[in-house]
Amino acid sequence: MEKNDMVLISVDDHISEPPDMFKNHLSGADLESAPQFVVDENGTSAWEYQGMFLPSVGLNAVVGRPLEEYGMEPTSLEQLRKGVWDVDARIDDMNVNGIAASLNFGSAVGFDGGRFHKAPDKKAAATHLRAYNDWHIDEWCGAHPGRFIPCAILPTWDMDATVAEIHRVAKKGAKAVSVTENPTVLGLPSIHNEYWEPFWKAITETDMTICCHIGAGNPAPHASVETPIEAWITTMPMSIATGAADWLQLKALHDYPSLRIALSEGGIGWVPYFMERADYSNWRHKAWTNTIFQDIKPSEIFKKHFLNCFIDDKFGLQNIEYIGEDNIAYECDYPHSDTLWPEVPEYLWDSIKHLTDGQIDKITHGNAMKWFNFDMFAHHAKEDLTVGALRAQAEKDGVDISLKSSGGARPVEEGTSRPITSGDLMKMFKQHAQKGKEAA
Amino acid sequence: MEKNDMVLISVDDHISEPPDMFKNHLSGADLESAPQFVVDENGTSAWEYQGMFLPSVGLNAVVGRPLEEYGMEPTSLEQLRKGVWDVDARIDDMNVNGIAASLNFGSAVGFDGGRFHKAPDKKAAATHLRAYNDWHIDEWCGAHPGRFIPCAILPTWDMDATVAEIHRVAKKGAKAVSVTENPTVLGLPSIHNEYWEPFWKAITETDMTICCHIGAGNPAPHASVETPIEAWITTMPMSIATGAADWLQLKALHDYPSLRIALSEGGIGWVPYFMERADYSNWRHKAWTNTIFQDIKPSEIFKKHFLNCFIDDKFGLQNIEYIGEDNIAYECDYPHSDTLWPEVPEYLWDSIKHLTDGQIDKITHGNAMKWFNFDMFAHHAKEDLTVGALRAQAEKDGVDISLKSSGGARPVEEGTSRPITSGDLMKMFKQHAQKGKEAA
Repeated sequence: MEKNDMVLISVDDHISEPPDMFKNHLSGADLESAPQFVVDENGTSAWEYQGMFLPSVGLNAVVGRPLEEYGMEPTSLEQLRKGVWDVDARIDDMNVNGIAASLNFGSAVGFDGGRFHKAPDKKAAATHLRAYNDWHIDEWCGAHPGRFIPCAILPTWDMDATVAEIHRVAKKGAKAVSVTENPTVLGLPSIHNEYWEPFWKAITETDMTICCHIGAGNPAPHASVETPIEAWITTMPMSIATGAADWLQLKALHDYPSLRIALSEGGIGWVPYFMERADYSNWRHKAWTNTIFQDIKPSEIFKKHFLNCFIDDKFGLQNIEYIGEDNIAYECDYPHSDTLWPEVPEYLWDSIKHLTDGQIDKITHGNAMKWFNFDMFAHHAKEDLTVGALRAQAEKDGVDISLKSSGGARPVEEGTSRPITSGDLMKMFKQHAQKGKEAA
Repeated sequence: MEKNDMVLISVDDHISEPPDMFKNHLSGADLESAPQFVVDENGTSAWEYQGMFLPSVGLNAVVGRPLEEYGMEPTSLEQLRKGVWDVDARIDDMNVNGIAASLNFGSAVGFDGGRFHKAPDKKAAATHLRAYNDWHIDEWCGAHPGRFIPCAILPTWDMDATVAEIHRVAKKGAKAVSVTENPTVLGLPSIHNEYWEPFWKAITETDMTICCHIGAGNPAPHASVETPIEAWITTMPMSIATGAADWLQLKALHDYPSLRIALSEGGIGWVPYFMERADYSNWRHKAWTNTIFQDIKPSEIFKKHFLNCFIDDKFGLQNIEYIGEDNIAYECDYPHSDTLWPEVPEYLWDSIKHLTDGQIDKITHGNAMKWFNFDMFAHHAKEDLTVGALRAQAEKDGVDISLKSSGGARPVEEGTSRPITSGDLMKMFKQHAQKGKEAA
């Protein structure tokens, strides 16, 4: 196999929802009460909903700018690459990067639909959440069949509505649902509570996969406001270990053999250690903990039920025999700062070229197709989805990949020479939110 | 090399301080105002100090009991193996486990001396802290020269006193200091603040090593009170990554080439991923973060300044070329529940027998001797410190290793069959504290 022969699925990318997202899916009072895209006189944009205010339109959607501007937070759609919010431009950006198909999380609604969970009027929130799913599945993913893995969000504050929505979106073609990694953060019972029993049942019946994305649930810890920001960026993916350990203890994994969980943006290099440590803890403690793991090891359950997703992870890819070649999938994280767009094929190939063709196929797309029950080859011939074929298409279409200075909110004043800290970033988001609120 | 030829240093074990610890090091009012060991009519023991109350005498010091009782918290010295608090018995327990030398953290005083940091009367606290160091260095470690690596604690709330104490304990033979992984948790400036400049200088001048032990600083996160307890046990060591990322950004590492930090009880298997991720984050973000890492990679600094410590870590030991064979050290964690006492030589040998003799020597004791500037061979011939020699001595001394049912506070009522949770453990510690407080 060569670089251009790879077929790539990314199981974790992001959309900044376009301003008119609800237009085709709601009308009258429901449309009027839906999240509104607001723009002030300076062009600063934001989403407003039920008295809540989301200042960010891009959430670190910095793809396509020079690295010098990776710390600046986009404040308007004009500061984003068009592919972040326009589906046709997104396909161009996927083609030029050799990506055959992609699973997208929302931004304004929260990766896990958390925005609707925080809304005071829950009846309206359920209506708008369903409209988001309609937009996401029918309009965004539907625009280019076989190029997107539809991923729904759920009104998990109401379990009956959740079960109904699971069945509804599954019928429409959804292959995954994105839920919080830790529902107690949203004020809901923990995943170990019987509250969730109908959820596990419905997900299994519809054969969908649960995505837990970092940042939606357990907080990513950072030591202090004076800590240089690269520390936080470093540990953010691995902070999913808290959620992974929590979900690994889920009784439902023993009751529902086909239940599947994707640890989105968690990385893979730490996973062999994690599984070994889970087995060790179980061995030393199962005599008193009443754990369900009496005759089976945590690592066995982990390998059966968890999909591990990586962006750039050379050490992990040197050790796939410890993780399992059937539960690793590539992710691109377009348009966030971790993405290697548009050079993914180059970097990825360098990380996996030591593997067999069969292993490369699994990790680049086969596992994603299996775990998400997603048959892109029903829509496109495989040879049209290779890196080489997609890039040839992009060249034909004249996709421009030149870097563009795009601006946005600065974390510190220009000319600051000391290291930028966690505190600076938190302050920037706060100030930006304040400005947006005044404008709205 | 064979199992019995190994020479083992453990760079992380624990002491439960004996009731008379201050007797030989204080007198009069200073002795009277020192932490007091109190025992109620039921034999429940605790330490009382300046209105604060530490219910635990053992802090999970469960070594020597059957695994069924690993969840029970010792409430009196009688429930502990004698080696936990008696130095001669400790030497027996080291011998029978093949451990030549050991670095010990305190319990009642906090791994990092945190108990004194929380005391309202700081002048008294400084006096008592120094007395702890005297007891630890002169009495505990001094009882068996060459068998212990003395590790001091510091009154870091007062930088002048800290610098003075560093020089004082170094002169007495201390090789390490144990400080909080995150001083902001104690209300002090972060490690990135100039407040710490005299500390880095004094540590470097005295050529000591800084130990950051898990649990003393950044909190180990757990998802919910309903989460089965094995999840928390699983992620606890790896939670040191938050601190490791924070310390890795320390400017002093660039200013003081000999500054050394031991990540105590952090494990090693996740470290290659962590270093790779730190380099990746740096590569993608250094154009805007003003990071000090412009011409040198974080992984280079990490390998130069950080000692990685493991208890049982097969995957990590299969990948030492990624971590660096010069910065890995073994730890036993006696008497805590992670310890493999008295079978360490068996389990450890199984994990390292694939390595070269030179690598085994480094990991089992050479690195510890170098990093802690500790020459045990000045006190004992190497051939007297091998696993085989020490175990022969233990046999001669008739060291009893039979497991002993020891009791203690139960996390849940007897007969409970559901999995024991994080919430149960937190409740047990709270109730036990309440009972102790009433008794005191």
